[in-house]
Amino acid sequence: MTIITLTTDFGLDDGYVGAMKGVILGIAPGATLVDITHALPPQDIRRGVSVLREATPYFPAGTVHLAIVDPGVGSQRRPIALQAGAHRFVGPDNGLFTAAIADAQAAGLPVAVYHLDRPAYWRPEISRTFHGRDIFAPVAAHLANGVPLEELGTPVDDPVLLPLWRPERRPDGRILGHVDHVDHFGNLISNVPGAWLAGRRWTISIAGRQLVGPRPTYAAAEPGELLALISSSGHLEVAVRNGSAAALLGVQAGEPIEVWEREE
Amino acid sequence: MTIITLTTDFGLDDGYVGAMKGVILGIAPGATLVDITHALPPQDIRRGVSVLREATPYFPAGTVHLAIVDPGVGSQRRPIALQAGAHRFVGPDNGLFTAAIADAQAAGLPVAVYHLDRPAYWRPEISRTFHGRDIFAPVAAHLANGVPLEELGTPVDDPVLLPLWRPERRPDGRILGHVDHVDHFGNLISNVPGAWLAGRRWTISIAGRQLVGPRPTYAAAEPGELLALISSSGHLEVAVRNGSAAALLGVQAGEPIEVWEREE
Amino acid sequence: MTIITLTTDFGLDDGYVGAMKGVILGIAPGATLVDITHALPPQDIRRGVSVLREATPYFPAGTVHLAIVDPGVGSQRRPIALQAGAHRFVGPDNGLFTAAIADAQAAGLPVAVYHLDRPAYWRPEISRTFHGRDIFAPVAAHLANGVPLEELGTPVDDPVLLPLWRPERRPDGRILGHVDHVDHFGNLISNVPGAWLAGRRWTISIAGRQLVGPRPTYAAAEPGELLALISSSGHLEVAVRNGSAAALLGVQAGEPIEVWEREE
Repeated sequence: MTIITLTTDFGLDDGYVGAMKGVILGIAPGATLVDITHALPPQDIRRGVSVLREATPYFPAGTVHLAIVDPGVGSQRRPIALQAGAHRFVGPDNGLFTAAIADAQAAGLPVAVYHLDRPAYWRPEISRTFHGRDIFAPVAAHLANGVPLEELGTPVDDPVLLPLWRPERRPDGRILGHVDHVDHFGNLISNVPGAWLAGRRWTISIAGRQLVGPRPTYAAAEPGELLALISSSGHLEVAVRNGSAAALLGVQAGEPIEVWEREE
Repeated sequence: MTIITLTTDFGLDDGYVGAMKGVILGIAPGATLVDITHALPPQDIRRGVSVLREATPYFPAGTVHLAIVDPGVGSQRRPIALQAGAHRFVGPDNGLFTAAIADAQAAGLPVAVYHLDRPAYWRPEISRTFHGRDIFAPVAAHLANGVPLEELGTPVDDPVLLPLWRPERRPDGRILGHVDHVDHFGNLISNVPGAWLAGRRWTISIAGRQLVGPRPTYAAAEPGELLALISSSGHLEVAVRNGSAAALLGVQAGEPIEVWEREE
Repeated sequence: MTIITLTTDFGLDDGYVGAMKGVILGIAPGATLVDITHALPPQDIRRGVSVLREATPYFPAGTVHLAIVDPGVGSQRRPIALQAGAHRFVGPDNGLFTAAIADAQAAGLPVAVYHLDRPAYWRPEISRTFHGRDIFAPVAAHLANGVPLEELGTPVDDPVLLPLWRPERRPDGRILGHVDHVDHFGNLISNVPGAWLAGRRWTISIAGRQLVGPRPTYAAAEPGELLALISSSGHLEVAVRNGSAAALLGVQAGEPIEVWEREE
């Protein structure tokens, strides 16, 4: 009973996601389907990378992660499937799997990428605009059925990787990062690793405001108060207790955030 | 492990869909539940028809499709269940299954419709406003459990059918159609069959704009450019690469679209 | 194949819900996951109570209901799990289970609440901000696997209970209630039990309008007409046939509603 997760920018108002699930269950009737999200901003590959990073590591080994944000559908961009550590991923070769690959490599785990070029594992008719239904869904289903990755395509060693915006530690000790994304609650999740801030007190500067932190948890602030803490993904986060930091500060993804140690 | 799909206009902010799933799993614990959408515009039967058509054909034979857009709940409108080819459908008799019936008949497949009039297969207490939970969910579950359709109701031969807006081919070769729906990306999916346009070049006129097409895929246009292509459901589609044609043209479902062959 | 339902205010744009499901399926691979909603208004415990009440009673005995609206995460608020009749619930001790407890007690069913204080049943590392993933999801999974409640924590007899806004019957026969919530269709669902109105005709007064009712069903009104009827949960409801009463009257949850018997 292999798990197949689904992460797309298709939304849930059309029949697109349903069609993909129908295709999968026709091939792999025993698969357990789990939606991660279908509400990625249209064509936003970068946000797809961060949501995959937020959710996929918590699934059991062997899970197949089908992920589609595909502005280049129908062009020469390759369909791919990959093994990254104990997880498998299927989708377009446009950088969506950048973190999956980078994180596996950073952990010393094997990564193997295949160009999906075996139409025998696709739907018989391939549309020019919906490879999710016609190529990626059947391939994910065959993987769940136990077909080995190497049967489904040809090894490649040049998957598209996005330049991940990385935080910077300056010689003077200052840390420069940015807001990676705004979550559902309006919390600002940065790319600054919480580990860099361990055991000391810092000044966090964002959008003209300065905060002292990190504080242990939302409850350390008064309702409505702005605070800095470590997010559930282990990054510096700026939040408002029981409110929206994004709304209060008027900021969005990409906003710079600067951090320096407090002199006390 | 029969699949039951769910398609409604109930939204996902209330407990309504959850209550239906609880009822189903109480009767058919082994059923596999798959949401198609719960975001149909309230009371929009016509959009329900097109989403069902977009998704249900991709499910395996034997799937039960529970679909509810039910402005007439509590009135004399009949609850029905039907076999259309290899699929079964359960819901209100208000035209929601027009395409399921028409497409099966067009393919020469058998169609059989039953008026659900056997309360033994319903929940013991029937509310006046939520037949989804009290009648349709238990009937779908009994179908998934193997109860034959003919046990659940009485055959009828006059299900409500909506007049499907059909595209027109004029004697002078012009094609007149309309936008069937706007999808999540803002693509305009028309009712003009792609097959009518095969092998030739056409002028597509919509909202005062003229396009040449169909082009093979989104990637044939520049980002932000308007183009015409064939949709994943096989219909003429007007789109903006990496953008929203609905926003650019300011049009919605029902907008006329006219097509004529190019003289070259 | 135990069912685990999920009810949160996490939204579906992030990876949070996916991460919880990954954790659950890693511990209880055979569990059947059913989303009730993830669209509760952020931090709105009261709305969580009413959605749980709307959906959970329809699930089979033995179901585990994971519910998280958790403004106090990281504070001293306790994580709890409870048995209420034939159902089990897991989440924060902040009043979210008020109706589950009150309804079981009103039905004479046993209620037992446990403070979750056994980290052996949690994820090895506990974040300060996401107990849904790190404590509640694994506990729900262990429950689904058959671990008894009393293994997971220590009995407590003082769970947080919210004062449920209750309708009032005045000595002169007038009923005073309020709008409990506005549903997806804009229907106004009150807290006035339909049973109080059985067999008589009443005047219902809300937002300066007076209606006669309850009427049997939406279809008893003309399209666009305001009417009062009994909701699918058995409460007095004010609706517009094929429209939104909330929009027409400009009211929201909390709006007073007054009812008195008609003299005829």
